[in-house]
Order: sequence, then structure tokens, then C-alpha cells
Amino acid sequence: MLGNFTYCNPTKLYFGKDAMRGLDEELPKYGKSVLLVYGGGSIKKNGIYDSVVQMLKKHGKTVAEDGGVMPNPTTDKLAEGCERARRAEPDLILAVGGGSVCDYAKALSVSVYCGDDPWEKFYRRWEEPDGRIIPVGCVLTMVGTGSEMNGGSVITNPAQNMKIGHVFGEEVFPKFSVLDPEYTFSVPRYQMVAGFFDIMSHILEQYFSGTDDNTSDYVMEGLLRSLIYSARIAVKDPTDYEARSNIMWTATWALNTFVAMGKDTDWEVHMLGHAVSAHTDATHGMTLAAVSPAYYRLILPYGLAKFRRYAVNVWGVDPAGKTDEQVALEGLAAMEAWMRSLGLVMRLSELGVTRDMLEGIADSTLINETGYKVLTRADVLAILERSL
Amino acid sequence: MLGNFTYCNPTKLYFGKDAMRGLDEELPKYGKSVLLVYGGGSIKKNGIYDSVVQMLKKHGKTVAEDGGVMPNPTTDKLAEGCERARRAEPDLILAVGGGSVCDYAKALSVSVYCGDDPWEKFYRRWEEPDGRIIPVGCVLTMVGTGSEMNGGSVITNPAQNMKIGHVFGEEVFPKFSVLDPEYTFSVPRYQMVAGFFDIMSHILEQYFSGTDDNTSDYVMEGLLRSLIYSARIAVKDPTDYEARSNIMWTATWALNTFVAMGKDTDWEVHMLGHAVSAHTDATHGMTLAAVSPAYYRLILPYGLAKFRRYAVNVWGVDPAGKTDEQVALEGLAAMEAWMRSLGLVMRLSELGVTRDMLEGIADSTLINETGYKVLTRADVLAILERSL
Repeated sequence: MLGNFTYCNPTKLYFGKDAMRGLDEELPKYGKSVLLVYGGGSIKKNGIYDSVVQMLKKHGKTVAEDGGVMPNPTTDKLAEGCERARRAEPDLILAVGGGSVCDYAKALSVSVYCGDDPWEKFYRRWEEPDGRIIPVGCVLTMVGTGSEMNGGSVITNPAQNMKIGHVFGEEVFPKFSVLDPEYTFSVPRYQMVAGFFDIMSHILEQYFSGTDDNTSDYVMEGLLRSLIYSARIAVKDPTDYEARSNIMWTATWALNTFVAMGKDTDWEVHMLGHAVSAHTDATHGMTLAAVSPAYYRLILPYGLAKFRRYAVNVWGVDPAGKTDEQVALEGLAAMEAWMRSLGLVMRLSELGVTRDMLEGIADSTLINETGYKVLTRADVLAILERSL
Repeated sequence: MLGNFTYCNPTKLYFGKDAMRGLDEELPKYGKSVLLVYGGGSIKKNGIYDSVVQMLKKHGKTVAEDGGVMPNPTTDKLAEGCERARRAEPDLILAVGGGSVCDYAKALSVSVYCGDDPWEKFYRRWEEPDGRIIPVGCVLTMVGTGSEMNGGSVITNPAQNMKIGHVFGEEVFPKFSVLDPEYTFSVPRYQMVAGFFDIMSHILEQYFSGTDDNTSDYVMEGLLRSLIYSARIAVKDPTDYEARSNIMWTATWALNTFVAMGKDTDWEVHMLGHAVSAHTDATHGMTLAAVSPAYYRLILPYGLAKFRRYAVNVWGVDPAGKTDEQVALEGLAAMEAWMRSLGLVMRLSELGVTRDMLEGIADSTLINETGYKVLTRADVLAILERSL
């Protein structure tokens, strides 16, 4: 049953080969000072940095830069960025990069004038912003997180071995995002396929929860089939525009709040993955891939009907003459075969996890009271061990 | 391939059993004067009018009323409404009703201060609004048109025997819509199932166009399956909240521009249906149902691969050992069986159309240069004759 909810997503998306027109349209709406946020510098090699700076100059902006945002943005980096932003007093924060850069830009947007420790306020106490929020715009260069059209922002505190996400309200959503699929062509294969699984996980963690026939369940089956189909093409030819553009669009809709409306969601795989990243700094999507098979096999008996439906509707498993459990397991086997064919990391050991780290990772794993089974600490350890 | 596009949908939706909370939240954002727009008065019988008026009083609004909006709102009604609105000078137009009332409210919102003949300007010349636009809010009481979250507005000119829609930009979208599935329970069965087919047609007219594997095609298959499933339940028990709420949500997403992004669309069935309505004043969804079987059978050879895909992915037709055409036709047969099971009108003669009216209806049918086949006048006549 569709529960009661409020839906509003005001982010404006400029999509396609000429998506940079969006920056041209949007920049006049903001004041003179822009803080340009980006990652490790790949945008300087592939020309995107130059295109953005040229556009900023065209509109007469004063630009301050905050580069070097890491794949798992840290509390230290955030503190440094806040200092920088207080000096620059930006009218717009322009994030050019992937999900980490967008997440960091959103964290910055609420933290600069929050008058508190942002980690404690937003990520530990999950309070809402009550100070001035600086508007954020995005130019996306990597696909997966969906951060371009939502209020999600994940920050890592290395001292505490914690990686935590806050889902902010619509006032923190990017005002606009520029989505040019060709901007993602130069992403290394490892990061590209990690992004594909991040999308998969976003959909699955909203799908494997609840027992109704919600419209979203049907929509998610469509998104999954589109992703599975296009990923098979993209992994063979990363410059296939049709495949990459459909994946980019699927990623946005997998996590822009639409499919979550009125239904239960889970997110335990992300909790496990965040804990692994907090201890290893491993690539987000790969941490999800490494723990997913063991996680889903563990919760399967508690959501058998949905796992059976997944097998039939998404993977085309023929249920004739099979028990529900056989059908459900065939579905998971098909998913795992697809994962291997993409070259995803299937074991935590490939991410630098060793057996002696498992207790620590379990300590860092937040347990959601949602999904088909609320995990015990023993469940968490069992999943980690089976994923090793 | 996903073409280039801009997506923005700022309408805020309040959904569920307590959706009227949305009016409570939204009314303070607007000035004192509200123009309350509604249809034939059913909202006075089912208590929705009282709830709305109570909420308007609570917020101290001055209310002018514009009732009697007909199922196919006319240019005369629009002229009368403009007069009324110029006297009331509303800060908000509040539409309480189904798609016709929402469509009319949007027409009013751009027409009151347009300084021109709105029919000529917006519906014949398809110009964009350049004058003041009055904000619109909706309380939805009938499901189907999707008007609650888009810029669509269809107006009928009886003197010209023309019914034409204008799709306005986001500045004309309702600012907010209140979607309480229980508000739709008292809709008569005929209107309820007509609405179901209106949803179906919105999806199909975006699906049966283009030859790519667009993400939207997969999403639309999901929306269709959800609709087919829930309509079977709702037609047996119109008070099944789960079914009605899922249908309400599907209707919104079938036509809020999302699934149209980056892909070709058709809309010829709506052109045929509008022509039938212009000559008969028949219920919109029923006009679509009556012409759809003949239309899709006529264009099937030009989009065979998609019709085959529709049969397999939406209707579960087993393609083994069959030609593509056999599979495709089995899909259409399954759709028609579903339509009959809902009690939809399957023949134009049931809507008061007689053979001598067909030439006139063909004259009123706008031909879109889209879809798998651009219709000739002979095609239009053939479809009308086969639908008689």
C-alpha cells in the first residue's frame, strides 16, 4: 500500500550532448562569487575544467577553487572547505565531478554558516539545517550515486572509522545539474562498473523491502532491466552513447526519491559498504558488490516472495516446476553471473580487508531497523566472513 | 538513444489519506483572494467542498467561486471565467475536481491577463504565455489525466468542432496538488474506468514511438503492469485503497513529462479521441478506448518489434514458436480482453457516433507527424469505420 508522503523534486536537469547549455542558462541567476569544487584533477585532463572555467568567465564570475575532494570526503576536508568558503563568500557552489564531489558540495552548503560542528550536527545527530544554505549546482562527470538530484550527502570521519550519510530536504537538493553522458566516457573502467553496481544497489535496497505491489516495485523492475541491458553493452564499449546515456538517466531516477515514495526501504547493504569504506577507503560501489551476494542470501528466507518475483520479472527465470526458493536462488545466481561479467569485485579480500578487520568493520556497521530482517551482530559478522 | 532535453517538475505533491494537510501547508504562501474552481457539483455531495471551504476559512481567505466546469471545458466557459477572475483578482486559483477542472484552471491562469483571445493565442497558434500567470493549486477528485503535475490543458471550441490541448511550460504547472486516493472512491464506475484507460493511453502513446531501448520504455512497461494489475482489483472493489492509490500514483507519473524525456512520442490516439469528443461530448477516456484497437492494429506493421516487445514484457505472451506478428497480435488481443473486462467502451457507436459523422470527425482530427506511421486521411477514416 502506498503510504502517506510528500513529493517534491525541484532540481532542474540539463541532459545530453549539449548539456553545458544549462550552465549558460543558470549562471545569470546567481551572484558574482562562485566556489568551484572538484576532485583529484581528472577534469583538468579531460577538458571539462576548461569548459566550466570558460563559462564562468563568460558570465563574469569571481571564482574561488576547492579541489582535491577525495572519493570518500572527510571531516577534515570539510573543515578546510568551510574556512575557504567563509573567505570566498560564494553565491553558488559549483560541484564538478562525481557523487563524492556533489555530496561534499552539499555538506559544504549547509556547514559554512551552521555555527556548529557539522559532523556532530548533521551526520551524528541528523539535525536539519537551520542556518543559511548556499545554493549548489552540479556538472556530473561520473555516474552512480544519484547525488545530482537528491539531498544525500555522505561524509567520512577517519578518526572515528565512521562513514555516515545524511539525507537532506529539498532545500539542499542541487538547484540544477548538467548531465552530459560523454563527460563520463573517460572514467576508468573500475570506477565505471563500480558506479553501475551502486545504481543496482540503490534500486535493490528500495525494492527488497515491503510486501505490497507498489507501483514503485514495477517501476524499479523496469529500471533494473534497463540497467542490466545497458551495462552489458557499456562494459564492452564504454563509448556507446546510447548505453551510457540510459545508464546515466537510470542512475538519477534510482535515487532521486521517486521510487521510495510510499514504500518501505532497507539500505543495510549501504551500511555494510560504508563500514568497509571507513576501514579501507575502498571504492563505494565495489564495497556494495562485495557484500551483496552474502547479504541477499541471508535475508532471502525472510522475503521469499519478493526474491521469487525478482528472479522472474527482472532476470527472466522460468518458474515452471520449481519451488519458490529454487526460483529465488536462480535469480540471485543470475545477478551474480552478471556482476562477474562486468568485472565487479566479488570478495572483500580484493578490497584489502583481512580477517582480523572484520570485528572492527562490524563495530562500524550501523543497523537499520528496516528490510526483511533486522540484522544481529552475528548476522553482520556472518555476512562479512562469507564475503571475505 | 536519449535525446537532449531539459527536465524540471517543481509541482509539490501531498499524497495519501491525510493529503489535505497539503492545503494547510500551502495556503499561507498565497495572498488573501482565492478563486475556487470546480465542476458539476459532485464535490458538494461527497463532502470535499466542505473540507476545502473550511480550510480556506481557517486561513482567512476571501473566496470567489467558479463552478460548473464541464467535462470538456469550452471556450465560452473560459471567457466567462476570465471575466469572473478579473473581478476577483485571485492570488491563487484552486482547482477541486478531475482533469477537466485542472485543465480549465491552467487555461484560466494564463488567459485572465493575456490581453488576447486565449483560444487563438494558446490553442490555435500554440504561443507561450507572456503576461501575468496566476498560480494554480489542485485538489484531485478523479484520476487519469495527469493534469495535477504537468502543464497540459485541453479546451474545446464547440463552434469550430475542435478540442485542442496546449502543453504549457513549468511556470504553468500546478504549484501543488493534493492527492487523496479516497477522494476518488465516489467517482461513478463509468468515469473511473474511463480514467484507467486514459492512463493506459498516455503510456502507450509515449511507448509506441521510437526504436531504441530507452530507459523510459522499461519504466513504462513497469507502469503498465502496475496499472493492469491494480485496475483488475479496483474494478471489482472500487474502495480497495491499495489498488486505487497505486493507480492514482501511476496516473501522475504516466504524464508528468518524466517518461517522455529524450524519446519520441506519438499522441495520435488523443487526436482521434479529441475529434470524437468535439462532435459528441463523449467521456475522454472512452473515446480513446473506442479507437485504440483499430489504431494499434493499423500501425502494428510499422512498429512490429515494439509491439512484439509489448506483448512479451507487458502481457506475458510466450513467444516460443510464433512469428513476431503472431506475438504482437496476441499482445493486442490480451489488451482488448483486459479492456472488455473493465467494461470500457469498445465501439464509437456506443458514444453516439453514427456513420454520417465520420467525415466530420476526420476533418476535426489533427494529424501528428510522429509515431510509427503518419496517418493519411484514408487511414483516419479506416480507423473510425473499424471502430464504429
